[in-house]
Amino acid sequence: MFTFETQAVDGAARAGVFHTPHGDLETPLFAPVGTQATVKALTPAQLDELGASLVLANTYHLYLRPGHELIRRQGGLHDFMRWPHPILTDSGGFQVFSLSDRRTVDDDGVTFRSHLDGSEHRFTPEKAIQIQEALGADIIMAFDECPEPHDRGYNEAALERTHRWAERCLAVKSRPDQALFGIVQGGVFPDLRLRSAEFIAGLDFPGVAIGGLSVGESKPEMLGILDILSGALPMDRPRYLMGVGSPEDLVAGVRRGIDLFDCVLPTRMARNQAALTRLGRISLRNAPFAEDPRPIDPDCRCYTCRTFTRSYLRHLIVAGEMLASTLVSIHNLHMLIALAADLRSAVLAGTLDGFIQDFEAGYQKHRPEAL
Amino acid sequence: MFTFETQAVDGAARAGVFHTPHGDLETPLFAPVGTQATVKALTPAQLDELGASLVLANTYHLYLRPGHELIRRQGGLHDFMRWPHPILTDSGGFQVFSLSDRRTVDDDGVTFRSHLDGSEHRFTPEKAIQIQEALGADIIMAFDECPEPHDRGYNEAALERTHRWAERCLAVKSRPDQALFGIVQGGVFPDLRLRSAEFIAGLDFPGVAIGGLSVGESKPEMLGILDILSGALPMDRPRYLMGVGSPEDLVAGVRRGIDLFDCVLPTRMARNQAALTRLGRISLRNAPFAEDPRPIDPDCRCYTCRTFTRSYLRHLIVAGEMLASTLVSIHNLHMLIALAADLRSAVLAGTLDGFIQDFEAGYQKHRPEAL
Repeated sequence: MFTFETQAVDGAARAGVFHTPHGDLETPLFAPVGTQATVKALTPAQLDELGASLVLANTYHLYLRPGHELIRRQGGLHDFMRWPHPILTDSGGFQVFSLSDRRTVDDDGVTFRSHLDGSEHRFTPEKAIQIQEALGADIIMAFDECPEPHDRGYNEAALERTHRWAERCLAVKSRPDQALFGIVQGGVFPDLRLRSAEFIAGLDFPGVAIGGLSVGESKPEMLGILDILSGALPMDRPRYLMGVGSPEDLVAGVRRGIDLFDCVLPTRMARNQAALTRLGRISLRNAPFAEDPRPIDPDCRCYTCRTFTRSYLRHLIVAGEMLASTLVSIHNLHMLIALAADLRSAVLAGTLDGFIQDFEAGYQKHRPEAL
Repeated sequence: MFTFETQAVDGAARAGVFHTPHGDLETPLFAPVGTQATVKALTPAQLDELGASLVLANTYHLYLRPGHELIRRQGGLHDFMRWPHPILTDSGGFQVFSLSDRRTVDDDGVTFRSHLDGSEHRFTPEKAIQIQEALGADIIMAFDECPEPHDRGYNEAALERTHRWAERCLAVKSRPDQALFGIVQGGVFPDLRLRSAEFIAGLDFPGVAIGGLSVGESKPEMLGILDILSGALPMDRPRYLMGVGSPEDLVAGVRRGIDLFDCVLPTRMARNQAALTRLGRISLRNAPFAEDPRPIDPDCRCYTCRTFTRSYLRHLIVAGEMLASTLVSIHNLHMLIALAADLRSAVLAGTLDGFIQDFEAGYQKHRPEAL
């Protein structure tokens, strides 16, 4: 049911297709984040129109509210949020370590308090799988620990736990219509990352994720780890770089063999009135846009750019109208999804180097006013 | 350019077509309110899909922000907000009297302070027309005074001003592609209302509006005024009941010969998580909806009801997701627009009495849980 076909390779980069029960995913791709079973401010119809194929939802949030058993009784996440295409859920691990108060980790799992009401909860690998099986996403994730990336001693201990937890997730997983991905951790330490890649690749996971990046390390540290993993991860399975998805990171990741990306950046930036473009970021609140009759990006094919001027978008922002969040989210998500599709086309055509050179030449200028 | 054809009459009710430069309006109709050049939380594409024909925008708000001259330079309201169908702007009078601080009225106009920043401004009939000509709506309104409806002495004086202002608006109006409507005032006093109707109907307005209702008078007082005006307003021009648009008021108004309605109620209620239905209002936050797999109204054809369950909508509301406002706004606006269309069909078929009996029997039960 879950097979990955590599259609073309260009350097370390790949173009492929990952087959899931709710449709084929053409890679590389960027997945919008629907934290609480909704990509903020967008209807599924708008998501579909802007080209989304895979949507991510957060196990930690949905476990706490409305509850995974409620979602199971409502027919699972696809039915609940009315997204008939592929869905990926994370394991809850990242949020337990980043959002919740007063957590205690032991080798069996994590006890934590809800960020909503302080109530006490416990996640184990078995529980994370149980919740994700109730939610019913196509791709589910092993329960892992995501530590601060520079503490060698802690990262070594956490990595051992993450590997034991990966085995336990595989052992307890029961639904054949879900693909369980393992997660490589190891902080900024090349030897730990290689040890983790070898271990995770040795288990029966149909896909491999890279966790613990974009969590406090420097950009050169992140790219160094991606370079190392590029040659160490199995070629025959999709590679998912978790929580990373700025335009520059998408390009850097594809060049290093990444197939799947997700990130809250485009929707969060949209709610902060910033637009992503091929020539850098635009803060749409800025006064020079007050009478600018151009769209955000004249070459963009999204609904927002086909329809509205910067002048109107700035008015909505200054007036505090929530439509601004919707329209800029549409643009920002479309920008990343289209960029991933362009990278895919370049891999298929064998022209990735030239594409990336052109992209970086434009992006590094940071002159979006020239659009 | 602006002609009104009466297609059928049933008692005092009418079905008609009002021709405008941006399309024909089939009446009776309900117009969503786009206060700041956006119907809150909805794209023009969503408005179009839910069946909106006419959209209202507020002169007072757009004059203050982003400014009518900016909108004129951006091609007018149709281009600015990308609504290619008919638009109506009010004169700003109602907001000057309800929103602004420290206003002073004289026979020439009103000096007021902005509710945004306290800056001082002055509206006169000439200024209200000048602003509305810059905005460029298809239907524009005469500048009027909307007083508290029970003070006889004040209403008599205000009515005289409103009538002089109506004449001045007509005298200064210059764009042939805009229809200027006059406004009948007179508070709760039948003789003042009749005097106003006779005066306004005697001027060269292609449409007549009823102002100053739903501003503090009782429901019987409002219906009494509508009954009186029903026989007093000209038959050959559209009649617009300003700012009124609950389902029950829509039915009561159509029965008394009203053709156009607008109201912020459906979108404001939506942002307060309440849905309008044929069997009364539903507060979607209520716990019994947590696992309710039905749409808001199983017979409704809007995107929200064709797509989402009450369970999902309640989750969005409890989780504070802005998509809830979008989805419930779609439903509430569609409900009123479809109700107006059903009333129109009943007038055309000569079956209005039966339709209203059925509607009232259901609506007065206030048992939306029975949907």
